[in-house]
Amino acid sequence: MFVTHKGVMRMVKIGILGATGYTGFELLKVFRRHPEAEIVFASSETYAGQRYSQVYPCSYDEVLVSPDEAPLGDADVVFLCTPHGASAVLAQRVLDAGARCIDLSADFRLRDAAVYGAWYHTHPVPSLLPEAVYGLTEIYRRQVAAARLVANPGCYPTGPLLALQPLLQQGALADERIIIDAKSGVSGAGAKPSPTTHFCTVSDNFSAYNVGHVHRHTPEIEQELSAYAGRPMRIVFSPHLLPVSRGILSTIYVRTVSGWDLPRIVEAWERAYAGEPFIHVLPQGSLATLAHVVNTNRCALSVASAGAEGEYIIITAIDNLLKGASGQAVQNMNAMFGLDETYGLLA
Amino acid sequence: MFVTHKGVMRMVKIGILGATGYTGFELLKVFRRHPEAEIVFASSETYAGQRYSQVYPCSYDEVLVSPDEAPLGDADVVFLCTPHGASAVLAQRVLDAGARCIDLSADFRLRDAAVYGAWYHTHPVPSLLPEAVYGLTEIYRRQVAAARLVANPGCYPTGPLLALQPLLQQGALADERIIIDAKSGVSGAGAKPSPTTHFCTVSDNFSAYNVGHVHRHTPEIEQELSAYAGRPMRIVFSPHLLPVSRGILSTIYVRTVSGWDLPRIVEAWERAYAGEPFIHVLPQGSLATLAHVVNTNRCALSVASAGAEGEYIIITAIDNLLKGASGQAVQNMNAMFGLDETYGLLA
Amino acid sequence: MFVTHKGVMRMVKIGILGATGYTGFELLKVFRRHPEAEIVFASSETYAGQRYSQVYPCSYDEVLVSPDEAPLGDADVVFLCTPHGASAVLAQRVLDAGARCIDLSADFRLRDAAVYGAWYHTHPVPSLLPEAVYGLTEIYRRQVAAARLVANPGCYPTGPLLALQPLLQQGALADERIIIDAKSGVSGAGAKPSPTTHFCTVSDNFSAYNVGHVHRHTPEIEQELSAYAGRPMRIVFSPHLLPVSRGILSTIYVRTVSGWDLPRIVEAWERAYAGEPFIHVLPQGSLATLAHVVNTNRCALSVASAGAEGEYIIITAIDNLLKGASGQAVQNMNAMFGLDETYGLLA
Amino acid sequence: MFVTHKGVMRMVKIGILGATGYTGFELLKVFRRHPEAEIVFASSETYAGQRYSQVYPCSYDEVLVSPDEAPLGDADVVFLCTPHGASAVLAQRVLDAGARCIDLSADFRLRDAAVYGAWYHTHPVPSLLPEAVYGLTEIYRRQVAAARLVANPGCYPTGPLLALQPLLQQGALADERIIIDAKSGVSGAGAKPSPTTHFCTVSDNFSAYNVGHVHRHTPEIEQELSAYAGRPMRIVFSPHLLPVSRGILSTIYVRTVSGWDLPRIVEAWERAYAGEPFIHVLPQGSLATLAHVVNTNRCALSVASAGAEGEYIIITAIDNLLKGASGQAVQNMNAMFGLDETYGLLA
Repeated sequence: MFVTHKGVMRMVKIGILGATGYTGFELLKVFRRHPEAEIVFASSETYAGQRYSQVYPCSYDEVLVSPDEAPLGDADVVFLCTPHGASAVLAQRVLDAGARCIDLSADFRLRDAAVYGAWYHTHPVPSLLPEAVYGLTEIYRRQVAAARLVANPGCYPTGPLLALQPLLQQGALADERIIIDAKSGVSGAGAKPSPTTHFCTVSDNFSAYNVGHVHRHTPEIEQELSAYAGRPMRIVFSPHLLPVSRGILSTIYVRTVSGWDLPRIVEAWERAYAGEPFIHVLPQGSLATLAHVVNTNRCALSVASAGAEGEYIIITAIDNLLKGASGQAVQNMNAMFGLDETYGLLA
Repeated sequence: MFVTHKGVMRMVKIGILGATGYTGFELLKVFRRHPEAEIVFASSETYAGQRYSQVYPCSYDEVLVSPDEAPLGDADVVFLCTPHGASAVLAQRVLDAGARCIDLSADFRLRDAAVYGAWYHTHPVPSLLPEAVYGLTEIYRRQVAAARLVANPGCYPTGPLLALQPLLQQGALADERIIIDAKSGVSGAGAKPSPTTHFCTVSDNFSAYNVGHVHRHTPEIEQELSAYAGRPMRIVFSPHLLPVSRGILSTIYVRTVSGWDLPRIVEAWERAYAGEPFIHVLPQGSLATLAHVVNTNRCALSVASAGAEGEYIIITAIDNLLKGASGQAVQNMNAMFGLDETYGLLA
Repeated sequence: MFVTHKGVMRMVKIGILGATGYTGFELLKVFRRHPEAEIVFASSETYAGQRYSQVYPCSYDEVLVSPDEAPLGDADVVFLCTPHGASAVLAQRVLDAGARCIDLSADFRLRDAAVYGAWYHTHPVPSLLPEAVYGLTEIYRRQVAAARLVANPGCYPTGPLLALQPLLQQGALADERIIIDAKSGVSGAGAKPSPTTHFCTVSDNFSAYNVGHVHRHTPEIEQELSAYAGRPMRIVFSPHLLPVSRGILSTIYVRTVSGWDLPRIVEAWERAYAGEPFIHVLPQGSLATLAHVVNTNRCALSVASAGAEGEYIIITAIDNLLKGASGQAVQNMNAMFGLDETYGLLA
Repeated sequence: MFVTHKGVMRMVKIGILGATGYTGFELLKVFRRHPEAEIVFASSETYAGQRYSQVYPCSYDEVLVSPDEAPLGDADVVFLCTPHGASAVLAQRVLDAGARCIDLSADFRLRDAAVYGAWYHTHPVPSLLPEAVYGLTEIYRRQVAAARLVANPGCYPTGPLLALQPLLQQGALADERIIIDAKSGVSGAGAKPSPTTHFCTVSDNFSAYNVGHVHRHTPEIEQELSAYAGRPMRIVFSPHLLPVSRGILSTIYVRTVSGWDLPRIVEAWERAYAGEPFIHVLPQGSLATLAHVVNTNRCALSVASAGAEGEYIIITAIDNLLKGASGQAVQNMNAMFGLDETYGLLA
């Protein structure tokens, strides 16, 4: 329950635009377990008029509405599970209708419209950029709580940013270049069928794609790392496609300045994330795996020596559909409405 | 090497129409290993002009031609890896050009144009039906060897037919109804992307589809079983989709007439298939698995008691892309040109 | 909260013996979400003294106790995740300590000690058999609620029994013999490493095992079906091993007496299970898949025509570790303590 | 056929010690296809006296002998698929019996007994180290051809060494430190069941292990890289476990000296490996995947920009059981007996 500005206590009313992609489906599952929120609409262009159980094998009988008929103003908050480009326009419409907005697309993650333009296309609604809050909850909780418009982080950035923020902020890292070797499950590519996501392409296979400095999550990661470090940071980013549905594991190669060793890194995380329900700092000697996080909203953090003084390998894992998308979105929503952040989510 | 009608000894010249589906790709792999055949063309509507290695991750540099430019007359035999409907028309064109034809589609499997019409659509070239030979090599070897036009069997029918033919022919089975609970890998659904074949749909999942008397392989199985039995046979056919790329395992429930027991069934198979390189009759106590056959042209046969006298469970397995499609097609080609049937194939 | 016999309202206190197998791990996950229960001990012979997070990749810090040191009397109810044979002896000890007992092994599922003896070994504690309640919650809810000792059903039986009970009870089925072609995920084989459960054995493979009338769940299914039908029922039971971790899908071949058709079967289920949170009756035309149920406590029920009048194919799916084991066990516990049956479970 | 020293032309006679591990099974499969070799014995301690088809699902009827009864002297060459430590002792016995020896264990890969001692244990037969040839065929072909004792390379080293040798030899690389982020299929862990290789542990999971400078393939890679570079090289090595049975993909981060760019790297490979049947240099813009190599003896090489001048990401893939073990072993054997290197192997 939250208290409205009129002093009324009631359930948070939720709208979902683009509800039949994987992040939309995940939101529905999360809200099934959420004790203080109720879905007032879920929209789909393709499946409008059908029940949700006709789209995915599940028991949800919600009838999907067309986006144009979605009663935006009936919701306290609307989740945008729509493609970049489209999301920005819808965000404006949602805000105009008086609802708050959590955008799961990339449209408001880059603070600089020029950077957005270089990696995507001309930003459709740059006027909204200044007020958008980057929704990495543990780092920007205060701003998120107050935001009208939250830019939910990308799936790849979430783990590395949570791992590196405490280190960069304390000046622990020596280089301005960081190698992130990331491996993602297939749901990260979305529900749209393509030769790339065909079972026979993915099964028994493993492949890299968009390696180097090409993937669109690159500028998002660099923007945040630079902000945490207070100086320009650069990444080498190698995404790979795992033959699993869910989960991202990132293997990160760093060098520390002198005075930092394994216990100090672990301790820095433990201090930074003390009391955080979703951050799981593994003890020295243990490494994060997908099994630590899949089907939960957790982010697992771990570190090992790279074999020479001051050289470390950080390994971090999340479920890309939860902490990397819909889970973190609900965590943000919980923060925005003063609810327990774990509502609807597995810690 | 085979001896042409002009008495010349040379490699068999192969053409492939529709070479970029899974059965086409499999043919290319088989012909890489085949000592006495060479590919003279491989066609693709979508990828004409590209090298094969641009379509699939492989090292094949064959340049794909458009089907209209395929030099049909240069081939001794053309494999049709094209959809039903289209195949029948192409078969006529291939025969007119003087080549023999092995059709991997369903167009010539049903002997009766009316049955074809009931399950598919009006047959495009019914005049070719009488000369088409059903290419279940072990059963119709003599006819295959002499054929101009071979209808390569469907993937689901191959295993059950090989298992049941010796039993039906000897009058071993009591009922006119047989239950076939079949489980297939995803490659059976073809290379075309769809929600059904998306990795996230198939992985960690298992589902039935077209169960009962609905799947288009039903009349093909019933046609053959009835022919072997000399009386009308009926099947209950339940296809399921396995989260694997390749392989079909069929669990078949039968009742025998008196006088038949486990050893006699095994012995009937051993006798019927003595000397057959691709039929693997498992000893009593062992059950066929996909691992017995995947990546080979083998069909594994096994049987167990169903717990009561005269009740048996037959389990048979093949690789759907090899013995269930391209492998059997090459086995047929080998028979047609007087070559060792194992050429290019793993026994 | 439940009211103790002393009139005190408090959380249900839970003990788990054998907590490091897959069903034990699943219980821990369920109780993490359960609002009105708390774990007072979790035991393990092998891992006593270690934290749970050292056994499985998770964030649970419960320290495992040795079974001999488990404070049985501190618990309101003890879950036995121990092997058959051992469970019966432990059940007696639990009851003697004053706790109620939910046994996930086979020890109390068969009402007749002689049948148990024929399929397992001499029953260790036959004196407890008369009071044990077979914990198929939807069918035996009233008895479960009052029970001191619940025999939690086997994973394979649960789906077929829930599907067939309403039909048998109404006399809908014609034959005394029913074919159940069942396919299970690997977790059903337990956590103990063996060549059979090695990743390389299972992946890309599919196999049958213990087919016919051999698997130990056979007498359990026959006992229940016979009870529902009021006459002796016999099954042909073919378990298969799927390359997935979780889930059982059963394809069941039945013949009905006249007067039954598809809509009537669906309607019989809908009526029998009206208001049941965990029974998902699919509309005609839809078939149950693992995706409908995995990670939930649901049982999905569906039916299709087998192609001839009065012949049907019933397809039912559950998650073997939830509705087929730990989920149903907690559902039973909720019933035993007057709690909402969905507590801790996804409906 | 090869010509013996007595001038006789005949098949190469093969012995396999430790034939029931994964590399032994793979050798049997390869020799099924090999036109000029025959197996004279295959041994197993555990399964002596049984047919091969009782150990693995296959149609091989070879009867396994106990290692003590293996007629070593009947073989021209014996493959050791035995554990390190044991292999060294057996190698001596094989050579004493007059056969040549290809050891698939680690016992003769490290030239320096002290290094071996530091990473394994005291070397059991250091006297054989000087004559052992490191069997990376493309690099040491001449020495392999003449060798009595070949140390078959480890699975992880093979790909990176083939990728880096031409670059290091030409002085292309700037740093003495190279990061190798490697991902392997489960068969690399061997056939012995363990919690680590349980299907439920691996499926839907992805994990790192022995990262940094800990894995035993580290000194083997450093020994070779240093030899190619003519100066000491150091690696950061991060092995990961993929949920696939076969294949290793290595993502390698390098910096070049000035004058090197993408086309020059590709060209260096093409020149170094011109005519090599098993090296597949991908064109610029394509990245190696497991699908390029699984079930073949190929090594795929590819490279992409890391986003800044002189920074590159090299991606190389092999099938760990073929080019990374048994395939390369047979390639070595073919070289040792003057046979076509592709015999028995898919190029």
